[in-house]
Amino acid sequence: MAAPPLPRAPVSSSAAAASPGGRALLLLRVGGGGSGRCTGVAAAAAPGWRRPFPAASVAARSVGTTPGEVAVDPKVEAILDSVKWDSKGLAVAIAQNVDTGAILMQGFANKEALATTISTRKATFYSRSRSSLWTKGETSMNFINVHDIFLDCDRDSIIYLGKPDGPTCHTGAETCYYTSVYDALQGSKPNQDRQVVSTLYSLEDTISRRKEEIVTEGSGKPSWTKKLILDNRLLCSKISEEAGELNQTLLENEDESRTISEMGDLLYHAMVLLRVKGVRMEQVLEVLRKRFSQSGIEEKASRNKS
Amino acid sequence: MAAPPLPRAPVSSSAAAASPGGRALLLLRVGGGGSGRCTGVAAAAAPGWRRPFPAASVAARSVGTTPGEVAVDPKVEAILDSVKWDSKGLAVAIAQNVDTGAILMQGFANKEALATTISTRKATFYSRSRSSLWTKGETSMNFINVHDIFLDCDRDSIIYLGKPDGPTCHTGAETCYYTSVYDALQGSKPNQDRQVVSTLYSLEDTISRRKEEIVTEGSGKPSWTKKLILDNRLLCSKISEEAGELNQTLLENEDESRTISEMGDLLYHAMVLLRVKGVRMEQVLEVLRKRFSQSGIEEKASRNKS
Repeated sequence: MAAPPLPRAPVSSSAAAASPGGRALLLLRVGGGGSGRCTGVAAAAAPGWRRPFPAASVAARSVGTTPGEVAVDPKVEAILDSVKWDSKGLAVAIAQNVDTGAILMQGFANKEALATTISTRKATFYSRSRSSLWTKGETSMNFINVHDIFLDCDRDSIIYLGKPDGPTCHTGAETCYYTSVYDALQGSKPNQDRQVVSTLYSLEDTISRRKEEIVTEGSGKPSWTKKLILDNRLLCSKISEEAGELNQTLLENEDESRTISEMGDLLYHAMVLLRVKGVRMEQVLEVLRKRFSQSGIEEKASRNKS
Repeated sequence: MAAPPLPRAPVSSSAAAASPGGRALLLLRVGGGGSGRCTGVAAAAAPGWRRPFPAASVAARSVGTTPGEVAVDPKVEAILDSVKWDSKGLAVAIAQNVDTGAILMQGFANKEALATTISTRKATFYSRSRSSLWTKGETSMNFINVHDIFLDCDRDSIIYLGKPDGPTCHTGAETCYYTSVYDALQGSKPNQDRQVVSTLYSLEDTISRRKEEIVTEGSGKPSWTKKLILDNRLLCSKISEEAGELNQTLLENEDESRTISEMGDLLYHAMVLLRVKGVRMEQVLEVLRKRFSQSGIEEKASRNKS
């Protein structure tokens, strides 16, 4: 992915910039209403409640239409028309964390929801139960700030790739997916500590559990991870050693499988250090994204170190 | 995630083992038919074509039912009944790469499809156009080997977390999502090299492009990444240096932000080495997953190094 630097402000200028004269070729009516559940099950609005993020009116302002209408420029209209909306005018919309790859939630989008997401860069869905748009975060303030949007090969499935402001699930969990079928078959109840995560974050969770076990169970007969957590000098010497062994695979032209194994060792030990320091891998990846999305990683590196 | 070691063979014993006496409480009729598209658009079966992976009959054999029927044990049945199937008996099913977190494809599952996936551990969907089950890979042999299955908080969305045998998309692309909306708005055509990926793999792609540019454009005025790629000794000295700086943040109790930054530097430089050696981060994560899913990472580490 070579994403251009993307604005993180509530309103992106992408859609407007793409419009030759800002002329409205398509006006979409936008309904209001929030949602108390993750995929739009109806929730009553509290008295005095208002949308903190009036996506539609912001978009409308920019092209001089009346509130309640979203003007869509021709290029956006072409994208919207290319989507294979189902018989109800909907397509599946999946929100994914840009840094971790975690699937945060899944809802549905109609034309208006996708148009609003494109222009506002806040993940916006269509609530089937309320028959209205809802922007994730409009009540919780946990918006999903969209960095890119992808369509699948059949053009009937959408990914909102973005950065969440906080937990996505209405339960307070980071993602909505914390019920493992195989765990349930073994009698376990759904557990928000057992979320769907890919290997890197599964390893991070394992290391975190080892650290917690030291507190709750003491450090008697510690595992290797616990030993590392308890001994900073041992941990640092291992990180240096593993870096050296990784280098050796290049300098001594060792087999590819050695490189894979040594990189695994280095990554694991470095992640133990992150845990000791209270740092999450997601924070590291966020920093890397900001550097290289501005072509910054190379500039920074060459400025400081070459 | 603390997944128990999971069998990778075509048929898992999980569902059968969970059944007290193997008694069939629910018999599901299973249709045949393959699919030439990613989400089940109809494709004519070639003469002599047969399903290389007859999931239903395998499952049926194990409990003594007749071919064409899948027996579901009570615990599995309870899971299936807990899903909020829509008016057509379907729920969204998303396939995700367990090691990279990449969203591979999205289809729909009905009860039979989910039951089949639970028992066979091959991602199986319901083709709405053919009105039949289809196991991803039954024609291409690029199965998605399911390690875990997650339901969302509303129980109307399913993630098949698994390892693909090869490219998932019918186009040959690794995933079905390679059409960026913002790229399209800037005039770019869909590009299979520009797939939806999270930050780590975006960085990996950037490093790969720098390596390709050395070949296609020469190395005149090289970027920092290119300099590293061209000079193994420089690269290795940087990796050792960054490892030392990461250690320093722990030993000298530096600020958390320093740890984040130094880990970013170490990861970036180590990933340049991986690229020089022709190793993908996914291979590293696969090795780590195999180690720690068998409680192996700690055993291996303590056996070899402590």
